[in-house]
Amino acid sequence: MNALPILEPVTDETCCTPASRPALDAEQAKRRALVFKALADPNRLRLLSIIKAESSGSTCACDLIDPLDLSQPTVSHHLKILVDAGFLHREKRGTWAYYSLIPGALERAAGLLGSL
Amino acid sequence: MNALPILEPVTDETCCTPASRPALDAEQAKRRALVFKALADPNRLRLLSIIKAESSGSTCACDLIDPLDLSQPTVSHHLKILVDAGFLHREKRGTWAYYSLIPGALERAAGLLGSL
Repeated sequence: MNALPILEPVTDETCCTPASRPALDAEQAKRRALVFKALADPNRLRLLSIIKAESSGSTCACDLIDPLDLSQPTVSHHLKILVDAGFLHREKRGTWAYYSLIPGALERAAGLLGSL
Repeated sequence: MNALPILEPVTDETCCTPASRPALDAEQAKRRALVFKALADPNRLRLLSIIKAESSGSTCACDLIDPLDLSQPTVSHHLKILVDAGFLHREKRGTWAYYSLIPGALERAAGLLGSL
């Protein structure tokens, strides 16, 4: 573990050039943070990896329970976050919902890092 | 808002082909989620954007307080998370700590999305 960075009041003339403004404004940063928050959970990353690997292009919710060994409500919760964040498309077919990766979504999230 | 995905017990013969295993195992997913957790905060994204934009290559902690309008302890807290996640290098010079972006760190985080 690293020691906490020391932030003390300005007492040195050589310190502190005019503060830079961040390239991101507060609203942009808030929106981007929501995207990364959707990715900040191991189970959601594993759900994305299963759905991405599905050759048919969409995955039945029924196939997402056993591989992760989670309860149905927990899987539902994680899938909803991924849909709301713009990573997954959800389509209802009869009893089940099917999920597919929105084309370009992972690439767009990666691009957010390049443009910080 | 989307309705919660419906996940009900298997009752349909046409449903549920053998479940795929996620490409990511639990340990890999846990490590990657920690990287995205570090990015899942608007203030940390803004800190990264300021430090990335610094032409001299490193930014005094003293220059990171005013632009975000946060307290010193809050800025310290966020910087520590970014150091621990492998995004920032911290160097102590006299009274102040200086932060620089670890080369390739943002690109590596972006690459984690491509290899899900």
